[in-house]
Amino acid sequence: MKHLLSIEDLDRAAVEALLDQSDAFLDVLARDIPKVPALRGKTVVSLFYEESTRTRLSFETAAKRLSADTMSFAVGSSSVKKGESLLDTVKTIEAMGIDAMVVRHHAAGAPHRVAQWIDASVINAGDGRHEHPTQALLDAFTLRRHRGPSLDGCRVAIIGDIRNSRVARSTMLCFTRLGARVTFVAPPTLIPERLDGWPVTVAHDLDDVLGEIDVAYVLRVQEERLGQALLPTLREYYARYGLTAERAARMKPDTFVMHPGPMIRGPEIATEVVDGPRSLVREQVTNGVAVRMAVLWSLIGSGGHVA
Amino acid sequence: MKHLLSIEDLDRAAVEALLDQSDAFLDVLARDIPKVPALRGKTVVSLFYEESTRTRLSFETAAKRLSADTMSFAVGSSSVKKGESLLDTVKTIEAMGIDAMVVRHHAAGAPHRVAQWIDASVINAGDGRHEHPTQALLDAFTLRRHRGPSLDGCRVAIIGDIRNSRVARSTMLCFTRLGARVTFVAPPTLIPERLDGWPVTVAHDLDDVLGEIDVAYVLRVQEERLGQALLPTLREYYARYGLTAERAARMKPDTFVMHPGPMIRGPEIATEVVDGPRSLVREQVTNGVAVRMAVLWSLIGSGGHVA
Amino acid sequence: MKHLLSIEDLDRAAVEALLDQSDAFLDVLARDIPKVPALRGKTVVSLFYEESTRTRLSFETAAKRLSADTMSFAVGSSSVKKGESLLDTVKTIEAMGIDAMVVRHHAAGAPHRVAQWIDASVINAGDGRHEHPTQALLDAFTLRRHRGPSLDGCRVAIIGDIRNSRVARSTMLCFTRLGARVTFVAPPTLIPERLDGWPVTVAHDLDDVLGEIDVAYVLRVQEERLGQALLPTLREYYARYGLTAERAARMKPDTFVMHPGPMIRGPEIATEVVDGPRSLVREQVTNGVAVRMAVLWSLIGSGGHVA
Repeated sequence: MKHLLSIEDLDRAAVEALLDQSDAFLDVLARDIPKVPALRGKTVVSLFYEESTRTRLSFETAAKRLSADTMSFAVGSSSVKKGESLLDTVKTIEAMGIDAMVVRHHAAGAPHRVAQWIDASVINAGDGRHEHPTQALLDAFTLRRHRGPSLDGCRVAIIGDIRNSRVARSTMLCFTRLGARVTFVAPPTLIPERLDGWPVTVAHDLDDVLGEIDVAYVLRVQEERLGQALLPTLREYYARYGLTAERAARMKPDTFVMHPGPMIRGPEIATEVVDGPRSLVREQVTNGVAVRMAVLWSLIGSGGHVA
Repeated sequence: MKHLLSIEDLDRAAVEALLDQSDAFLDVLARDIPKVPALRGKTVVSLFYEESTRTRLSFETAAKRLSADTMSFAVGSSSVKKGESLLDTVKTIEAMGIDAMVVRHHAAGAPHRVAQWIDASVINAGDGRHEHPTQALLDAFTLRRHRGPSLDGCRVAIIGDIRNSRVARSTMLCFTRLGARVTFVAPPTLIPERLDGWPVTVAHDLDDVLGEIDVAYVLRVQEERLGQALLPTLREYYARYGLTAERAARMKPDTFVMHPGPMIRGPEIATEVVDGPRSLVREQVTNGVAVRMAVLWSLIGSGGHVA
Repeated sequence: MKHLLSIEDLDRAAVEALLDQSDAFLDVLARDIPKVPALRGKTVVSLFYEESTRTRLSFETAAKRLSADTMSFAVGSSSVKKGESLLDTVKTIEAMGIDAMVVRHHAAGAPHRVAQWIDASVINAGDGRHEHPTQALLDAFTLRRHRGPSLDGCRVAIIGDIRNSRVARSTMLCFTRLGARVTFVAPPTLIPERLDGWPVTVAHDLDDVLGEIDVAYVLRVQEERLGQALLPTLREYYARYGLTAERAARMKPDTFVMHPGPMIRGPEIATEVVDGPRSLVREQVTNGVAVRMAVLWSLIGSGGHVA
């Protein structure tokens, strides 16, 4: 594997190999000195055309735990302002001598183009509404640790603005690779117009599915993407799709709650639910570091087994 | 000691233990390779809700001298903009696996709340008008190196906008812990309404105290905090409270001059005074790194004596 | 050598010594683990009053390859906003304990003043319209690797906004130190009014010199610096001075193409030319890391031969 651009490129065995490696790195993170020299002398650069401190810090932490050097290219303060093309920006960064480039871009497909231009490994850290594969891998990894090695038969509801969410797409694909059955739960205006044969079902009423699911995966409502045309009011949306304590009480007692963050506590997901015993929200963040270590190591490590 | 939130929490012995440890680290900084592996594998994150390159760099330098990994969470470019609460921001950062969080926040008490929420050690790097304990420790450390182990009987004037200054409060508390006698020197409008039994005296005329003090500690005038109601003009303020060369000449020859920075040379403090033989301004900065090393090591070091 | 402030300070032997050292570091960069411990325990800080991700990343990469610690002082988010002077900013940074300061400033001569104030080594990373010596050294290094140890007799055209370009000045000086003959090619309004006895010739028509040159060195047009008074339209400028594929075809087959970046592909320099077999554009970037390693090591290394 040279790049990690989308979950769509990975079959079940590839996903499982990455998650197995993540298990090993999660053990490393529990050590007193949670570092390994696996990527000593390697350089990992983050190139973010959209702000995301959370994802960027997670990747940088992962790289440092592997003893790689890290560089951060903040597009706001860069040559990009002087009219430089994406091609020249990435070629210039590559020419400084890097091994992996973590790319977030507002345009779907941008990381794929970058991968065609450079010899370094490219990791998609979110491209437009397309994919966010490491988020999907950490979600699958987190759920697998609680459900056993397989997600066969696990019923997952992904709730929220599916249409605009790269997380919804990537996480759905990754969950289904491992055998889960995914339902998108959203008003019709927030479901993609074409589901392109994706292995999902669709529900418009959260209350219809609450009692049957093993996982409630809540998406952040991206208010900046919700036009007047799509939803009468945000309040109405929350009334129908917010994961309130009352709704959580109608789920099976062992239903897990997940969220990719950042969360809007209250209307989107109740505080008692976020902080409740079935919430995996913090584990997702911790596991994100282990999963990104596994991805980095699989792409630019020298092979062999680490840790 | 788990956190460093305020000087008010520390008794004289606790302050002296930190300053003794700072002495050891100042020796480390004088070495050809000024590093020790004391915090190898530890991660220190800075979370600054107010800009302060100076304080942030000092903490990051201290962490690197101890071989810790550092991460910087710039709030301006973060999830905070997407509506995330302080609670979720710090819980998320903690979940990535950190050992200490250095917090600056515009709200008094914010670091205390953070300390209640997370297991990592919290260091207050300035909270509203409340406290800035590492500044106070570096001030006390700097003065102690010139006055001997005790500040008993040392007379200190803290001059300027006392009301709005967390430095004034923390440094006064720390100096008095070590035996110094502190006078706040400011117009009545810039003195806190309630001094709450603080062990200080107040003077409204700088010229009254000039000849008696052992230390003139000048505060930065924070113009953004001076409304029309408080002071007729900045010019009048400087005329009465600026540490001019003429005023400095009326101090005892061995009176020290200190300033927490950044300084406004000229009206606030004369260039000849800043650069004069009794100025401790640069030493304060250098000592700040040693003191922050001592704080970090005391909070998250594994115990035992270092360096 | 204590500082690197301008090429004007360096004679041919000094330039050649730096380029010889750069050769050694370029070999280091080709290793599997491209790092040496030459500057372990040293701290290199970048202080940029003008944005330049490209140059800053190159210096930071060079410092990390030498195992130095790096700090970055972003002026936009700094004490400077609070009214601190350049003197106090650099004195404060120095007091934290640094070995080298890489300074970019909009005012010509600023790095020279910094060098008078502090004991640490100062490297000019671009000062106003004055000099950008490491760019010049990497340009000379890149050309020397293709032309043999000497540039004697090599004919170079530097094309574009000479008047406003510190790169034009530094690179011209460095090329001529090594024996090259430089021609400035620009409309009269973009040539400095006084050439001060510089060893250059001037041409106003690119097509006149195309067939005779060994190197076409294209400058970025800094649109923000082009007033209406200087040029009727940017389009007319590009028509006369853009390095089109058609013009490139009229150069000798072995004429090299160089550009300091960032480039505006298309009007300024044609895509076929940038990506053609005689383009040294990417090599310039790669070599920049090796040259900056050599500069850092020469200034603050402990002497002796490295790598």
